[in-house]
Amino acid sequence: MKTLWQHCHVASMAQGAYSIIEDAAIVTSASRIEWIGPRHALPDTIDVERHEDLGGAWVTPGLIDCHTHTVFGGNRSGEFEQRLQGVSYAEIAKAGGGIASTVRATRAASEDELYASALRRVQALMRDGVTTLEIKSGYGLDLASERKLLKVIRRLGEQLPLTVRATCLAAHALPPEYVERSDDYISHICDEMLPALAAEGLVDAVDAFCEYLAFSPAQVERVFCKAHELGLPVKLHAEQLSSLHGSSLAARYKALSADHLEFMDEADAIAMAAAGTVAVLLPGAFYFLRETQLPPMEALRKHGVKIAIASDLNPGTSPALSVRLMINMACTLFRMTPEEALAGVTTHAATALGLGDSHGTLEVGKVADFVAWDIERPADLAYWLGGDLHKRVVRHGVELNV
Amino acid sequence: MKTLWQHCHVASMAQGAYSIIEDAAIVTSASRIEWIGPRHALPDTIDVERHEDLGGAWVTPGLIDCHTHTVFGGNRSGEFEQRLQGVSYAEIAKAGGGIASTVRATRAASEDELYASALRRVQALMRDGVTTLEIKSGYGLDLASERKLLKVIRRLGEQLPLTVRATCLAAHALPPEYVERSDDYISHICDEMLPALAAEGLVDAVDAFCEYLAFSPAQVERVFCKAHELGLPVKLHAEQLSSLHGSSLAARYKALSADHLEFMDEADAIAMAAAGTVAVLLPGAFYFLRETQLPPMEALRKHGVKIAIASDLNPGTSPALSVRLMINMACTLFRMTPEEALAGVTTHAATALGLGDSHGTLEVGKVADFVAWDIERPADLAYWLGGDLHKRVVRHGVELNV
Ligand SMILES: [Zn+2]
Ligand SMILES: [Zn+2]
Repeated sequence: MKTLWQHCHVASMAQGAYSIIEDAAIVTSASRIEWIGPRHALPDTIDVERHEDLGGAWVTPGLIDCHTHTVFGGNRSGEFEQRLQGVSYAEIAKAGGGIASTVRATRAASEDELYASALRRVQALMRDGVTTLEIKSGYGLDLASERKLLKVIRRLGEQLPLTVRATCLAAHALPPEYVERSDDYISHICDEMLPALAAEGLVDAVDAFCEYLAFSPAQVERVFCKAHELGLPVKLHAEQLSSLHGSSLAARYKALSADHLEFMDEADAIAMAAAGTVAVLLPGAFYFLRETQLPPMEALRKHGVKIAIASDLNPGTSPALSVRLMINMACTLFRMTPEEALAGVTTHAATALGLGDSHGTLEVGKVADFVAWDIERPADLAYWLGGDLHKRVVRHGVELNV
Repeated sequence: MKTLWQHCHVASMAQGAYSIIEDAAIVTSASRIEWIGPRHALPDTIDVERHEDLGGAWVTPGLIDCHTHTVFGGNRSGEFEQRLQGVSYAEIAKAGGGIASTVRATRAASEDELYASALRRVQALMRDGVTTLEIKSGYGLDLASERKLLKVIRRLGEQLPLTVRATCLAAHALPPEYVERSDDYISHICDEMLPALAAEGLVDAVDAFCEYLAFSPAQVERVFCKAHELGLPVKLHAEQLSSLHGSSLAARYKALSADHLEFMDEADAIAMAAAGTVAVLLPGAFYFLRETQLPPMEALRKHGVKIAIASDLNPGTSPALSVRLMINMACTLFRMTPEEALAGVTTHAATALGLGDSHGTLEVGKVADFVAWDIERPADLAYWLGGDLHKRVVRHGVELNV
């Protein structure tokens, strides 16, 4: 079934730029793009069965949110409110709050409950134009609970018209069972959890949190070694609150991405560029935590590191339900251009998921995942602050009802 | 036609607090609330014709956006992009950018074009739970163009299930015809524009922009005098970029509100409290302009000034399409509590529009404008960052399809 989509302009995002095609035509065949270009150049040899008029819309690749923690039990709005009422972090932690409360709620929740609550959040992202979504485990912190999370993540990918990538983030935080035994927990991850979860086909990539309040570079390296042994690519939460050079470590392991990165330095950027490791910036967490240390944009640009943008959707530091809002925040807070930010949620986000060959740009042979936005120019996607823009979302050649 | 809405909790926002009613029932009769309270206390003498199950939702008053510039020609995403590409404000202004470009586009647009573009933005706000909306003129800056804007504003109120208040902001900026003759423009406003527009029934309130780059306190006072002569309440853009004590001036004229207020001082707060003038804070503009001067929250609280929150939706400094995002920004950036922020888009916003007797809280006799949110607790409205929350919106007792 071939469909011709026309009466539109395209920002194909090829080569990480807008790469605009004015008055464009797109021919999709099943789930792929068979032809794309200026409408006047459309070959009349293509046998189109269905025509779709996009009404002058701007078409971009479907948005890709490449760093989220979408599946979790409970939420932390109560803590958010307490903090603003003047309760200190210390008091909240003493009362069992913070990530510990999310781990408790996640462990206590059934797979169905986790699915139902995550579904709401995923639907919010999809209404925003997201067609590919990465989701990390990391609130279970024991084999059974991490498995439960990863199964929910797989189920979301199976039941929704959405490409979902599952990342195992068992090395997210130290579970209560392992207090003051973090090396033992890392051994448990490497010896038991990763081999089992990988064997069950639940893991597309392995992530860890490298920070003084989480795991050390040496511990992360053990996780990375095991991941490579299992044939799994790695990513890393690095340099969010301090500089441990986790991003350079990630680059040594040819990580798909290093994420957060506010405290990375130029040497890290050089290492990442050489390794092809994508820098995933998370402006929602920067905003929500009122951080002031900006990621080193000039070093990233100078050394040609690919920059992605993601929601970091999580209950503690970025309860963000909109990728388009992240585009605005990347521009407003990090001073990225709208073109850079849009590349950050399309082509570079695809690369950060290892999907660069099939997703993230509108080119012949790639999946037909795109959004037709009723806007005046691509920069509108960065400019409008919040809210919902009129759009049509197509995934694998099929229009979604979002 | 009486309807019983039940299986819900209510944050009625009476007295500017959550004023929670657990397991509540609401009886609406035509467009009003006839009864509200705990379900077990519902008198069986009320003759209910229709039952609605709210499925355990949290019900709040319909959101009120009390400060917007929703109707304008063009948009400024091109400038937004240029700025991020490194073009200076001076270069953009020299090329005819800034508010001058919006005035040109607005004057050139037909009433129907302005209606169509504003409709999109209003629909985005309505999808977010807004049931009452203030819209200012101020991009016409001549009698015919200001009339055109105010007519579009009236038409939005007539054609949508939405309460719309029209504010004349002719004293927004100096039109090109009056360069270096600002006193003459103020005379034109007072002698020609306001009397004509008021006589045509197009104006509910009169606003002005009191700032060194707009109009002086003495000029604003002339506008206020004329407004009072015409029987119209006033409001003021004050203390956004510097301290001219416009907020104290507004209080002297018993203004409904003074808005922005980052640079106001404690004496201003005392004057506003005495006059009952609401402080309207605009976190979207604060964020978009990356301002650092915070409004004086402690002085406002200490003196009991009512605080409202609004989107300031406008093309130059706050292209914000979501009031719920403004709630989050009020909490995150201004450190308001979720309860204060919710009062700021309900009861205090109603007072800022002179609608305090009929709108803004869920109490007997008030309009039946409410939103049933599928959330765990009221603080969720402040906590989730962007995106769309599952909700049902009721306005004047009738459920909307938003
Ligand atoms: Zn994360
Ligand atoms: Zn304004």
